[in-house]
Parts: sequence; C-alpha cells; structure tokens
Amino acid sequence: MLEALKQEVYEANMMLPKLGIVTFTWGNVSGIDRKQGLFVIKPSGVPYEDLKPEDMVVVDMDGHVVEGDMNPSSDTMTHLVLYKEFPTIGAVVHTHSSWAVSFAEAGLPLEALGTTHADTFFGDVPVTEALTKAEIESDYEENTGHVIVRTFKDQGIDPEAVPAVLVKQHGPFTWGPNPKKAVETAKILDVVAEMNYHALQLTRGDIRVPQYLLDKHYYRKHGANAYYGQNNAKSNSGVTHR
Amino acid sequence: MLEALKQEVYEANMMLPKLGIVTFTWGNVSGIDRKQGLFVIKPSGVPYEDLKPEDMVVVDMDGHVVEGDMNPSSDTMTHLVLYKEFPTIGAVVHTHSSWAVSFAEAGLPLEALGTTHADTFFGDVPVTEALTKAEIESDYEENTGHVIVRTFKDQGIDPEAVPAVLVKQHGPFTWGPNPKKAVETAKILDVVAEMNYHALQLTRGDIRVPQYLLDKHYYRKHGANAYYGQNNAKSNSGVTHR
Amino acid sequence: MLEALKQEVYEANMMLPKLGIVTFTWGNVSGIDRKQGLFVIKPSGVPYEDLKPEDMVVVDMDGHVVEGDMNPSSDTMTHLVLYKEFPTIGAVVHTHSSWAVSFAEAGLPLEALGTTHADTFFGDVPVTEALTKAEIESDYEENTGHVIVRTFKDQGIDPEAVPAVLVKQHGPFTWGPNPKKAVETAKILDVVAEMNYHALQLTRGDIRVPQYLLDKHYYRKHGANAYYGQNNAKSNSGVTHR
Amino acid sequence: MLEALKQEVYEANMMLPKLGIVTFTWGNVSGIDRKQGLFVIKPSGVPYEDLKPEDMVVVDMDGHVVEGDMNPSSDTMTHLVLYKEFPTIGAVVHTHSSWAVSFAEAGLPLEALGTTHADTFFGDVPVTEALTKAEIESDYEENTGHVIVRTFKDQGIDPEAVPAVLVKQHGPFTWGPNPKKAVETAKILDVVAEMNYHALQLTRGDIRVPQYLLDKHYYRKHGANAYYGQNNAKSNSGVTHR
Repeated sequence: MLEALKQEVYEANMMLPKLGIVTFTWGNVSGIDRKQGLFVIKPSGVPYEDLKPEDMVVVDMDGHVVEGDMNPSSDTMTHLVLYKEFPTIGAVVHTHSSWAVSFAEAGLPLEALGTTHADTFFGDVPVTEALTKAEIESDYEENTGHVIVRTFKDQGIDPEAVPAVLVKQHGPFTWGPNPKKAVETAKILDVVAEMNYHALQLTRGDIRVPQYLLDKHYYRKHGANAYYGQNNAKSNSGVTHR
Repeated sequence: MLEALKQEVYEANMMLPKLGIVTFTWGNVSGIDRKQGLFVIKPSGVPYEDLKPEDMVVVDMDGHVVEGDMNPSSDTMTHLVLYKEFPTIGAVVHTHSSWAVSFAEAGLPLEALGTTHADTFFGDVPVTEALTKAEIESDYEENTGHVIVRTFKDQGIDPEAVPAVLVKQHGPFTWGPNPKKAVETAKILDVVAEMNYHALQLTRGDIRVPQYLLDKHYYRKHGANAYYGQNNAKSNSGVTHR
Repeated sequence: MLEALKQEVYEANMMLPKLGIVTFTWGNVSGIDRKQGLFVIKPSGVPYEDLKPEDMVVVDMDGHVVEGDMNPSSDTMTHLVLYKEFPTIGAVVHTHSSWAVSFAEAGLPLEALGTTHADTFFGDVPVTEALTKAEIESDYEENTGHVIVRTFKDQGIDPEAVPAVLVKQHGPFTWGPNPKKAVETAKILDVVAEMNYHALQLTRGDIRVPQYLLDKHYYRKHGANAYYGQNNAKSNSGVTHR
Repeated sequence: MLEALKQEVYEANMMLPKLGIVTFTWGNVSGIDRKQGLFVIKPSGVPYEDLKPEDMVVVDMDGHVVEGDMNPSSDTMTHLVLYKEFPTIGAVVHTHSSWAVSFAEAGLPLEALGTTHADTFFGDVPVTEALTKAEIESDYEENTGHVIVRTFKDQGIDPEAVPAVLVKQHGPFTWGPNPKKAVETAKILDVVAEMNYHALQLTRGDIRVPQYLLDKHYYRKHGANAYYGQNNAKSNSGVTHR
C-alpha cells in the first residue's frame, strides 16, 4: 500500500540526521495521499539507523492505523490536524532542531530580518500561545495541531506562504508540497533562527526588512513570475538568452 | 569476569566521542552488576581510539580493583558513591561536554524551559554547591559524590526522575538503568543546555514551563501510561489500531 | 568554450559546501576571462551534488547567455556589475554563510579587530545601505551590484585591498584574482565574522586595531615586500637562509 | 637531519586540522632538539593536505635556516624567542582558533572558571599588552615573542604551569614538552575559551574558582603525587589495588 509514498517519506526522514537537525529519534516526517485520504508517517521512537521504508505506518484521516506493525509517531494527531486544516499541504515535519527550539522556548517569533528568510517565508514565522492545562491534559497532540491552526487564522497568515510555525515551549513544525521540500524548510528554519539569534544579539535597532523586500524575494522563487532555478521564466533577472 | 557488562561499558564509552560530548579522554562511563556488587569502569586517561573491552576495570563496592591491569578512572570514587546512594541506577556517566560545563561554571541549574527538557528530566537539573576547601583537599572524588547526593536529598529530587546533575565549577554527571541510556542522557543534557543558553539570551521573561507540561511529557515516555515508542500501550495519543 | 575556466569555476563552487559556507543551493561563484569579455557562472538552483563542469553558463558583458542550456545564477547581474566596475578582479563569490549574514542583517560592518582580519582585509569590511523600494522592484540584482560599488566609492575603499562587502539585509559578496582565492576569502570573511561576534559580546571597550597593525599584516602577505608563503622575499621576518 | 623530530613535528601539524583548530594554513607547530640547538618548524603557507615530513624546515638558534628548501613559518622568530626564554619547553604551537582569538581580540585573559581549565592551566591564561607601533614596524615576530615573555615575567607566571598565552589583537600560542602535547594544549585552550565565553554570558557573578581547586586539579595530573592516567601512583584517589 502506498509503496512510492512510503519510500519518499522514508527518504525524507533520513534527511533529518544528515542535515543535522535531529538528535536521537526527535523528529518525524509524514506525507499524504490526498486522493486516498491516507498519510504515511515514521514509527515512534525508532532510531534512524534502524529505519526501513517498510516500517512506515499508514494512517487514515480518523487517526486509525490502516497498515504497519509499529506505533506511528506520537505526534501523529498533530500531523492529522494540519492535513485537515491546511488542505493544500502534502507533507509535515516536526523536529527539535536547536536554534528553532530556542526561539520556541523564549516564546518569540522568527521576524523577517533578511533575504535568507524572505526566500522561503513570506513574513514572520509565528510562535503559538502556550497550550492550556486542559489542552495538555487531554488530546495533547491533537490540541498542538489546533493551536497551530488557530495561530495562522488569528494572525491571518497563509500557511502556504509561511510554511512553518514555532509551538511555544516545544519546537518547530514545517510543511510543504512534498516530504523532501518540507524537510528542506525545517533546515532553512533552523538556519534562519541561527542568523536571527546572532543579529538580535548584535543590535537593538529595528532590523526587520520592509514588505517590498519580502515581496521581491518571495516572488523571485514562487508563483508565475518566479525566475530562480531552472523551471521558470528567464526574462526577469536582467539576463537574456540569445 | 563480567564480560557482557565490560562489552556494554566499552560500547557506551565509545559513544562519547561519536556523540561529540568528549574532548581527548575527558569522560568515563561505568555500569554495575548489582547482584555481584561489582562495577565496571573505563581506565584512567586512555585515548578512546586505543580502548578495548578487556581494558575495562572491575571495582568492588569498597573501592578495591578486583580485575584489570590499569588504573580505573580517577572519578571512580564518585561513581561508587552514586551507586551506593542511588540504589536503583545501573550506570553512571561523567563528561566535560561544553554546554553543560558552562552552566556548571556559571553555577546555574538547567531550568525546564521546554518539552525537549521535559521528555527526559522531570524538573530542573540541579547544580550542586561548590565543594569546600576541606572536601577538595581530602577524598575529593568521594566528596564529589556526596555533594551530588546531598543536593538531591536537600532539594527533594528523585534521582530516577531527574537523572543528571551539574557539579559546580566542574561539570555534568548523568546516570540511568544501563550504560547506553546514561550516555544518551549525557548527550540530551548538553543539547538542553545549548537550547537553554540561547533561550535565556533571547529574553528576560520567565519562560519556565508549568508543572502540567512536565507531567505530560514525562509520563508520555515513562511509567505505566507511557505511549512513546514501540513498547507501550497504544491507546493514549488519539491514534487507534484497527 | 572556456573549458579551463569552467573547470576552475566548477571546482571553486564545489569548495563552498566543503568549507561549510553554503546551505542547499545558496551560493554561487563566477570567474571572468577579461580578454574575451566573458564570464562563467554556476547555473541557478542546481544542487551541488548534481553539478558538473559542463553545466557552467557563459555570459557576456551585456548579460547575454552565450553558452549553456541552463539559467545562470539569479545573481548573475550583480556579478556583471562588479566585473565592470572593479576592472582588476577575476572572480566573484556570493554566499549566505551564517556569521557574515548576521552582521549584514544587523547592518553592521566587520571592524578590524585582529590580525586574522588584517591578513586578508586592509581595513573594515563595509556594509552597504539598504536598497530602496525602487531599487528592489526593478533591476534588483543589478542594483545590488550598484549599491556595492557606491559603498566602495563613497567610503574611498580600494576593492583590491578589501575584497568583500556585506549587502545590508542580505549577505556577503567577495571577490579576488581567481575563483579559488575568492572562495577562500568568503570562508575567511565568515570566520572573521564569528570571531568579531564573540569579541564584541565579551567587551564594550574599543577594540579596533590600529592602522600600523593593519599595515604590517597586510603587507606581510601582499605587495613587493611580502614575506608570507613560498613565493616571496625571504629577508624580512628575521629568518635568514645560509 | 633530525628525521625523527621532523616526523613528530609533521604529525603534530597534521593534528591541527583534525582537531578543528585551524583554517587554511593559519597555524604552525615546531619542536626543538635542545642538545643540537636546532628546531624544526612547518614551512610558511603550505596547505596541510600537501604537507610532507621532509618539508619541515630546520632552523638554528640564530634564526638561520640550516636545512630545507622552503621558507619556514613567518612566525619562526616568535618560536625562537620562546625557546630561548623558556628553556625547558620542547615545542611551540600557534593557531588562530576561533574561541581563543575572540578573547585575544577582546583583550581579556582566560580566567580559571572550572576544573576543565584547572586540569591543564594552573591559573589564568594571561593576555599580553598590545604591541607598540615601533614593536610592530620592526622585528614584529621577534617582538611578539618578547611581549609574551614579558607578560609571564611581569605577572610572575611559570610558563610550565601555564603553557599558553593570548597575544592581544592576535591569538593564542601554546607550548609543552613535545609537539603532540603542545597541540593538545592548543585544543584545550580553545575548548576552555568556548566554555568561559558561555559561562561569562550567563552570569555577572564572580565565578573564578578558588586556589585550592586549582591546586587539587593541577597536582592530580602533574608532579610527584599525580594519580590521573596510567603512569602515576595509584594510592591517592581512594581506589586501591588488591
């Protein structure tokens, strides 16, 4: 069942240690087949060096395991809520990468301070409120998904334009069109957090970038007029082909 | 004598350089056979690349070397005190990992600031008082053990729930049911110290997490209702198996 | 066409991940053939592990691609402006290396704080002004080149003596006589930024080095009286050959 | 000539990149044959991957190259002064390792803040004064040696007990009985600087360790009553051999 997606989710999970954004088993990647209404996720607590594509667990949109001998990630219900509420995303990633966690623990968003940020995130990466006692004590993982969705709704943020969040007191979640892209975004988030940390220690000035810089960098890489990479129109950066 | 335990202790020692928490020979791991009243520990000052399982030294509960040609770790008496006073632990680890040492030098505990901490430590990781002149000048290593035990007793901390300490002006000790687990805890302690450092530089707000978050994350991984990983009840995270 | 230069530019691009100054595809190196008025640059958005020498794109001084199937780097027009305005340079490098970007985001120059800096940069590495809305919205990459050139002209800095700049809100550009040297300078810039960051956090004193130290270190490695390395006069450091 | 020493100096030089304390060619190690009054040093500006044992240059105590086709390290005269003035040392190392350089640039000594420091350095690692204009403009490298020696004499520090210094605005020099030991000390210095940096950012309290802790840790590893490692008396740490 879903062998190609399992392979894809497996490979994306294996990127986490390679990119240096995971310690031990503290991360998980899932990918969804929207037509079948099923998603594939890493099993809980299995070391990356022991992981095999066939270990991936298949879960339906009611949270039932429909294939796989192992327990799915303990964060499965958070992934499920994000798939339901962000209907265009194809993959979800959770890590405890150090720089991003530090901002989550401090309860601070990742403000847009430069083009490295703007190339991937079209505005600040928000931080959620802390979950309440009631939200933690019952359906904790599901409520983690809800606090993320609430944050995006309350602040009017488009989850496709800002494919990441910091859950306060916890850490980052990212998402994207496919598992590989969502993992790359998890790495970028951590790199941006590292840059922000140092920039914020260097100055107390207001160093947020203006909206027109966000527009420029985001639309250079996204949408109809994108010209970064090999699959886009070539006329926009001042370089012409003979 | 104790060949299986020697192998286990050897392998756990070799994890230290692999996990990046040791410089040169600045770390040691031991494991105990409670029935025989003997523990196995790394020899003193031997480079990790030269270490062999048969080099491990066997020591009894009176601090007598009962097998092994080499000197045991200079911290042997600290391990011995911890084994005596914390009767349920099966292994002890000492390192000079950079982030944890920085907090030990600053004389600050590792406050619980997020779920990364809460997954392993059920509350703050305490820092001891500095050893007195008398404690340092005579039976130094033994007194290092005593100041650890005193810290846990005075603050009413359960060493199984918080399997780590920072010895002021010195560095971290961790423990656990077996050598591998205790080494993993040594790595986690350093990662948590790194996250705490950056979070504390980012804000002056009170960012300690509430007790109910500690409860949730600790009992998600520990005890009868744990549901993280593959060896626990599966009914608790909202995911069900058909 | 320009096969030797393509190889050289390819190899210099491949140094970026090896030196740890690039994440994903966030960097590009070019080299110029001044006689032919053509430069060779990395294609846009191609992962380093997939890059081949023959993928390098040849561009003329009007910004026309004259050879190569792929889009050149989106930063091509910035490189072109630098080649035009700094007529003695042979190569240009752009990265998003973390330490240098942090200073660019904070809007701070890299002050000369020690000999590590002085060995490569004959004075502070300047930071540009932020680009205006108009400069960003039209001919953005070309204007990035212009703001760099303007910074050097306004501050009277010789681009051969200080072969690097921080573009505010963006990141570093470096240059040099050839691609390899320019990449080495990109690494040095990041190392110097790391050292400066920590030194500036340690003290609020004025720790800029005096001009005579800059003179000494710069001319030890550059110009007619240089005596560092194997290709210089040997009489100057107090050591004599029999 | 001095083939064994050349091999030893070569191997110690090759440890620098392996230990992560050198960028490009920014480091050099030498070792001395006291009987012959000759020392062996790395050639200037040669990349570590190209270095061979036979490239090492032999220099006499007047600064004459007596064997070797290449220029010796540009820092040769600094090494020579240290060999002359510190008559018991057998090797000298210079690096631009990042953490140590940051303290040198900030003009701050490395205060003894913990046992990691005390195991190697019997007290603070001093920082020199800045060299004067005259000292820099003539015989710069020799004067670098003199300012180091002056610092130790003025502050009454024994160079065997504190085998390291930070040259202000420049970086660290370390020394020891042989090249390998001196390189290990260069690594330890950088690790201690990293720990100090973070401890000093965490607190404004006075966290220097007392003299009796320095005594304990230093004499645990050095001198007649040392008991760390495999070559010392075994009776001192509370552990006994049957």
